[in-house]
Amino acid sequence: MVKKKSKPLLNLEELGKRVLKQIKGGKNPEIAVPIRALSNVEFDAKSRTVKLGNKVSARYFFNISHAKKFLQTMEIAAVSHNLLKEEKHASLRDVFYMAKRTIPGTKVNVVDEQNESDTVIEDLELVTSNSREQLNINANKNGSVAGKVVIQDKGDVIDWSKLGSGGWSIPSNVEEIKFKKVTAKYVLYMEKAAVWERLHEDKFWEKHKCIIMSSQGQTTRGIRRLLQRLSKEHKLPIYVLTDMDPWGHYIYSVIKYGSINLAHISGKMAIPDVKFLGITVEDIEKYKLQKHLIKFKDSDTSRLKQIQNYAWFKDNKEWQKEFKAMKQLGSKAEIQALSSRGISFISDEYLPEKIKKKEFLD
Amino acid sequence: MVKKKSKPLLNLEELGKRVLKQIKGGKNPEIAVPIRALSNVEFDAKSRTVKLGNKVSARYFFNISHAKKFLQTMEIAAVSHNLLKEEKHASLRDVFYMAKRTIPGTKVNVVDEQNESDTVIEDLELVTSNSREQLNINANKNGSVAGKVVIQDKGDVIDWSKLGSGGWSIPSNVEEIKFKKVTAKYVLYMEKAAVWERLHEDKFWEKHKCIIMSSQGQTTRGIRRLLQRLSKEHKLPIYVLTDMDPWGHYIYSVIKYGSINLAHISGKMAIPDVKFLGITVEDIEKYKLQKHLIKFKDSDTSRLKQIQNYAWFKDNKEWQKEFKAMKQLGSKAEIQALSSRGISFISDEYLPEKIKKKEFLD
Repeated sequence: MVKKKSKPLLNLEELGKRVLKQIKGGKNPEIAVPIRALSNVEFDAKSRTVKLGNKVSARYFFNISHAKKFLQTMEIAAVSHNLLKEEKHASLRDVFYMAKRTIPGTKVNVVDEQNESDTVIEDLELVTSNSREQLNINANKNGSVAGKVVIQDKGDVIDWSKLGSGGWSIPSNVEEIKFKKVTAKYVLYMEKAAVWERLHEDKFWEKHKCIIMSSQGQTTRGIRRLLQRLSKEHKLPIYVLTDMDPWGHYIYSVIKYGSINLAHISGKMAIPDVKFLGITVEDIEKYKLQKHLIKFKDSDTSRLKQIQNYAWFKDNKEWQKEFKAMKQLGSKAEIQALSSRGISFISDEYLPEKIKKKEFLD
Repeated sequence: MVKKKSKPLLNLEELGKRVLKQIKGGKNPEIAVPIRALSNVEFDAKSRTVKLGNKVSARYFFNISHAKKFLQTMEIAAVSHNLLKEEKHASLRDVFYMAKRTIPGTKVNVVDEQNESDTVIEDLELVTSNSREQLNINANKNGSVAGKVVIQDKGDVIDWSKLGSGGWSIPSNVEEIKFKKVTAKYVLYMEKAAVWERLHEDKFWEKHKCIIMSSQGQTTRGIRRLLQRLSKEHKLPIYVLTDMDPWGHYIYSVIKYGSINLAHISGKMAIPDVKFLGITVEDIEKYKLQKHLIKFKDSDTSRLKQIQNYAWFKDNKEWQKEFKAMKQLGSKAEIQALSSRGISFISDEYLPEKIKKKEFLD
């Protein structure tokens, strides 16, 4: 029995056939690639996500300034096609090495630096209307999850509530996961693994019937897709818990609205309903954290200014008020400052109170 | 029924009682703290680990240059004592915030920067002969594991071979984990999560009856302790898979010999039996990776020189040969360069061959 070809595989083959037809017809082979630059990125007020505009540029094979990029696009398409056929996944770095071959009869490599293959992968996402994950190219793996959910993945049934102190390690690609039982009422996502361990030890997800999820540092695409699937498929509210600083706000902003870099994939990644549950300027006084304020460095001040001016924050009164208050304060604060009130203050008082009173920024 | 006090709790109480006795006896309160500096670090050839020497300095309360540090030590000891009593764990950052209180009647905080509390925590490890983990103070959480092992943790039974594509997320503290069933024959530890995902997708651990473990970046203390426990308690060989570069070599070196910073805790952390299975200069030719060499930057050259001169590498002929060959090559190479030979080349050929032929550096 022949296996049915997947949509991404067919999309790549269409791309190949289109180019082949041009060659056979004696035409200059060409690929139309939507332009990914701030000039072609807009904030779509209706869907409330960062979206790509309609500008497209053609990439020709017989054009000195296009030829290499054209070749790279074909090469990476072939790499992805192989991965899909073999049902294997590769990282961005792997794809770079797979594409880095010397063109026969020359001393020229198809790609020399990873940013070349990375850019082409993003182009291919657009050209084929498939996310990188669907093209079997994975991002970084990071993060842990625990809570009232049972999933099925690679034939294993995994209960997120029965994984000891570690939790489930979130893979880079969550497209194939099946949710078998979701009894959680909401998801709490935090930027810090140490805060996750705090809430996990306090059995926060058990007491409050929820899911706790964290990365360490940046929110990986695997985590964003997992959050989005829980939001879309199970209508779970998502709360984002970060420090009170422009970097924490940006973490929230990326999850909610999408990022400039990945504007072309916003539909698959952005979660317009997420709410910000991190430390706010109001919290500082309310929870007596004044002593734990950390003075802004110049980089904080300028980052705050940038974020304040993003289209998706510009008309948001609540957020503008928050940004202004932060600027006035000239300081930031960390979630862990709450530990000064007692090790489990965050689990026993701060979070339950904020969630009950719906003290979110939106 | 009164619960029996744990050893770390008793050790902290002894420290407190000792100081109290000095106070009651009208003496200048004093704590003896072993000196943690390169001048008091030596490579112990017999145990083959980096160890602390015998130099000790006394810390007095009535001494202007000691008073604050004395106070900090008492404060952090009290924080840890509370954590142990409440059976809760805190991160380094939490402990910092818990200790950052203003001394009544003054404007002075007990600690102002985290490095102050971190240093005192390391002192307390020495003074009480307990690791930070035993004092309920956790390091960062990072890393994933999969393989032929069943553990028990916090009342949950967790089969590392049945966790889908994600694996078990390694907690920061693995002291309480019980190994219920270990059928793995060895552990493969790698520095890159993307390589872990490659081996996991290829079911490497299933085919070769082993455990695969990875972090992303630095090897956390949780991972080091987990490796050590598998080595000590289950006599499993540990193979470390890193890039061919001085940073990869240092990752191996820390796991094997311990680190200068944590020399005082080498006995709990170092694993003298681990073997290096990363890319070697010989591999470059053997596996035709020449094209994928990355020219050394100045920082690589100087790091290589440093490592070459570490006491624990100095008399190691094999390693000195490797360092010399690398210097001559003036280049480094990544594990993922193997992907240029095919996406599963690492799983199907490279690793099985190296392990079978015992091509390790020791």
